[in-house]
Amino acid sequence: MIEPDFSKGNGLVPAIVQDIETKEVLMMAYMNRQSWEATLKTGKATYWSRSRKQLWLKGESSGRFQLIKDIFIDCDNDVILLQVEQLGGAACHTGYRSCFYRKLSGKDFVEVGEKIFSPEDVYK
Amino acid sequence: MIEPDFSKGNGLVPAIVQDIETKEVLMMAYMNRQSWEATLKTGKATYWSRSRKQLWLKGESSGRFQLIKDIFIDCDNDVILLQVEQLGGAACHTGYRSCFYRKLSGKDFVEVGEKIFSPEDVYK
Repeated sequence: MIEPDFSKGNGLVPAIVQDIETKEVLMMAYMNRQSWEATLKTGKATYWSRSRKQLWLKGESSGRFQLIKDIFIDCDNDVILLQVEQLGGAACHTGYRSCFYRKLSGKDFVEVGEKIFSPEDVYK
Repeated sequence: MIEPDFSKGNGLVPAIVQDIETKEVLMMAYMNRQSWEATLKTGKATYWSRSRKQLWLKGESSGRFQLIKDIFIDCDNDVILLQVEQLGGAACHTGYRSCFYRKLSGKDFVEVGEKIFSPEDVYK
């Protein structure tokens, strides 16, 4: 049986998150085995927060859950690709739809993404 | 000026690679500062091979270069998203168009991707 290889990245694999409909890349986060199993069990994307060192059910505080639609694994079994329905229309804690809301233009990055909400209204 | 933060990942940042046209996620690899600068200078995706511990110009041996069309950076400046034109139609050394050619179906992953070439004909 094929499953994520958590051994290479100190117990973590990167998980790329893509909108199932638009194919926009929304974010990247990390999963350990516990968060992988929670994701499969609940159908909601659950990561491992490296900064807080705890399970991180995406959307737990904001309501912006990511409903799992499809899961892919890469050729080396060490990267996961989640295709999700992003509730609330935004994945990024900054309020942008995608965490990748800045694009290289010349020598600097400039904001191009769509802002969906104001973080100060959500995280109090 | 915004630039990738190589300090958090021991000198490396993950780079997600997406087809500029179809928005398919093709692969993920790592960049160090040297490969980042080479990518900007040449317009061809250049990574850091963690296994070979050397710069890795994608396509150098196969001709399947990745021409950079757009570059995004995430909210924490520690993940890069490359939108590319994939020469030769396949990013994966297995011959599949995308490294994410296996999808979770029930409890196991099954092959669903499109195979473009036979690796044994290319890497001799």
